[in-house]
Amino acid sequence: MTTLSSPGALRHLFHLPDGVVYLDGNSLGPLPLSAPAATDKMMRDQWGEMLIGGWNKAGWMDMPGALGDRIAPLIGAPTGSVVLGDTLSIKVYQALAAALAMRPDRKTVLSDSGNFPTDLYMAQGLIDHLDQGHALTVVQPENVAGAIDETIGVVMLTHVDYRTGRMHDMAAITQAAHAAGAVVIWDLAHSAGAVALDLAGCEAEFAIGCTYKYLNGGPGAPAFIYVRPDLHETIEPALAGWLGHKAPFAFDLDYAPGHGIQRMRVGTPPVIQMAALSAALDAWDGVSQADMRAQSIVLSEAFIAGVEALGSEAVLASPRDPALRGSHVSFHHPQGYAVMQALIAEGVIGDFRAPDMMRFGFAPLYNTLDDIEAAVSALGRILETESWNAPEFMARKAVT
Amino acid sequence: MTTLSSPGALRHLFHLPDGVVYLDGNSLGPLPLSAPAATDKMMRDQWGEMLIGGWNKAGWMDMPGALGDRIAPLIGAPTGSVVLGDTLSIKVYQALAAALAMRPDRKTVLSDSGNFPTDLYMAQGLIDHLDQGHALTVVQPENVAGAIDETIGVVMLTHVDYRTGRMHDMAAITQAAHAAGAVVIWDLAHSAGAVALDLAGCEAEFAIGCTYKYLNGGPGAPAFIYVRPDLHETIEPALAGWLGHKAPFAFDLDYAPGHGIQRMRVGTPPVIQMAALSAALDAWDGVSQADMRAQSIVLSEAFIAGVEALGSEAVLASPRDPALRGSHVSFHHPQGYAVMQALIAEGVIGDFRAPDMMRFGFAPLYNTLDDIEAAVSALGRILETESWNAPEFMARKAVT
Repeated sequence: MTTLSSPGALRHLFHLPDGVVYLDGNSLGPLPLSAPAATDKMMRDQWGEMLIGGWNKAGWMDMPGALGDRIAPLIGAPTGSVVLGDTLSIKVYQALAAALAMRPDRKTVLSDSGNFPTDLYMAQGLIDHLDQGHALTVVQPENVAGAIDETIGVVMLTHVDYRTGRMHDMAAITQAAHAAGAVVIWDLAHSAGAVALDLAGCEAEFAIGCTYKYLNGGPGAPAFIYVRPDLHETIEPALAGWLGHKAPFAFDLDYAPGHGIQRMRVGTPPVIQMAALSAALDAWDGVSQADMRAQSIVLSEAFIAGVEALGSEAVLASPRDPALRGSHVSFHHPQGYAVMQALIAEGVIGDFRAPDMMRFGFAPLYNTLDDIEAAVSALGRILETESWNAPEFMARKAVT
Repeated sequence: MTTLSSPGALRHLFHLPDGVVYLDGNSLGPLPLSAPAATDKMMRDQWGEMLIGGWNKAGWMDMPGALGDRIAPLIGAPTGSVVLGDTLSIKVYQALAAALAMRPDRKTVLSDSGNFPTDLYMAQGLIDHLDQGHALTVVQPENVAGAIDETIGVVMLTHVDYRTGRMHDMAAITQAAHAAGAVVIWDLAHSAGAVALDLAGCEAEFAIGCTYKYLNGGPGAPAFIYVRPDLHETIEPALAGWLGHKAPFAFDLDYAPGHGIQRMRVGTPPVIQMAALSAALDAWDGVSQADMRAQSIVLSEAFIAGVEALGSEAVLASPRDPALRGSHVSFHHPQGYAVMQALIAEGVIGDFRAPDMMRFGFAPLYNTLDDIEAAVSALGRILETESWNAPEFMARKAVT
């Protein structure tokens, strides 16, 4: 059993380049040291030697479920309720299509402006093509609870706001939605591996997430979907792919959904990406959600205290109460873009979200209090000397 | 400029295990020798060192289009008309949803029983969820042309039949569909890298395909989609993901489709899989479609002649005229399952498709006439000695 006894206690499992303070693991986790060799071994020993036989002999076919079972404890889900595949965007579509079919008499999908845009886009695309009179209502995050009523068919939210780290009360919102008869979908992109989650306890119908942020699966790592077990045999897949069929290799002409969470599989899973992800998940073996959350809070509290002690123009954009935020913290600053570029030039990697937010992610597995001290110190120097006020930092690239 | 002067002239670029005659590259292509190192380098030098910066610095963001441009010449498509991403199942859905929206007054989708089942399943899932009165009509392959009339909105076919290798006349069927006012979608799963294709010339609206068969991208390699260039700015994506948005990093709350083929992107692309695929595509640099097709036919003709000369119970299930088939060949045999197991035990890897078909794929890049001779010889021995009649070959696994 691994104990995450201090922030960054598992830093030795990751490659963090010299001179870099990496506070952007909430966009893309760093390379697990074991991932290249694991991927190479899969390619040479399995793909190379077993060829087509790898699907059975090497267990490729079962990996989406097996990896789902390894993610389940990190999100408070039971074994057999999570499966890997596709991208988070596709999983949003899949969950929302199934949710809408569960409430045919209700036409409103409720979301908020803190949801990641692709979730809203996927909903818009689905609604437009269904052409069944659905509408997407987007309110401010703090107004979600008040907007839930008996007209709402589906409440679809990202648990932790990608900009500010503001965290919804998953249990309370799910309960309110259920009381009003709505189905709930939680996007855990900024939650899985970052905050403690109890999907089973909150009884939400669907959850989705990605594995390239705090789970460190690498660029383009597959997404996951959770479906509450009592729904497994009744949900109707819109994305009715052959690997969700009850007998994919019977090659029947008619679709018949598979059993359990397998029904949420679609096409051929990305085996090479899954090899890297599998190595990445080793780092989580035995890490409790409680320890993960505790060390995340140690990091974010230290960072907020450090930045505020600078006495600068930077203003906290995230909730001050750690119970109300995820594992990243944002500060407004009128020159936030240029300041972030100056920080990156000094090796402190965070990112910027318009109009004026500097965002810093804290990954409890590998970020240390030394990282916090170095980042705060660099920020203090940059603000003190106004070194951000240089042409190379001010020149903002066109948003493409 | 590479010349594919004989069948298998590029065999030195692939890992083919000792003692194996691999005739299943139409299911999963073998490991390109350069792929593990290319993938390792991407992981260590790009993911490891550039971290989140890899999306721009290493060009990850542009890879779906860049790899699409490398596939384009293999399918007769112009630069800028092909993009990578997702799985073939998802690409079927994406193409069909867009096609249906182009013909709102027509409710019938025409396909055939030689289409790969996932294509039919995805169509069924889409139609069920749309609930707009669409129907999927599935006819026998030879009856497709006769079934096209002015009630048909979309003709959706797999070009080369996954069972028999029977090949549709892409130009003639597309022309007939257009004459009747229908939109056409071609699935090139068993065509890309196997037969000569002229998508631009036939003027089909959509084509989709996978990259793990003849293109050797590895297990779970991403799919591709082609859209006829004149449609790029008008098609309406059902899968409206953020990387198909006109400005993904503006994080607007409302979807606005991107320009050109970018509109068919959905979520975050699988960068590790794309690194392997990129190495695999190097083998195709400079290989002409004409040479590829010519060597494929040399192989399949030699195999048919060899098997038929055995004078066994094996009966050709594929078209005899090479102009009417793709790059795989199937034979019926009453004990086809057991015979294939016996072949595999001797290192000759093909596969079996119910009820009685032994299927053999010929990849012009690496299969040689020696492979054909060895396969025919093994088949002859097995049939002559009835060595297939052994418990380990007869025991058929349950179809799962």
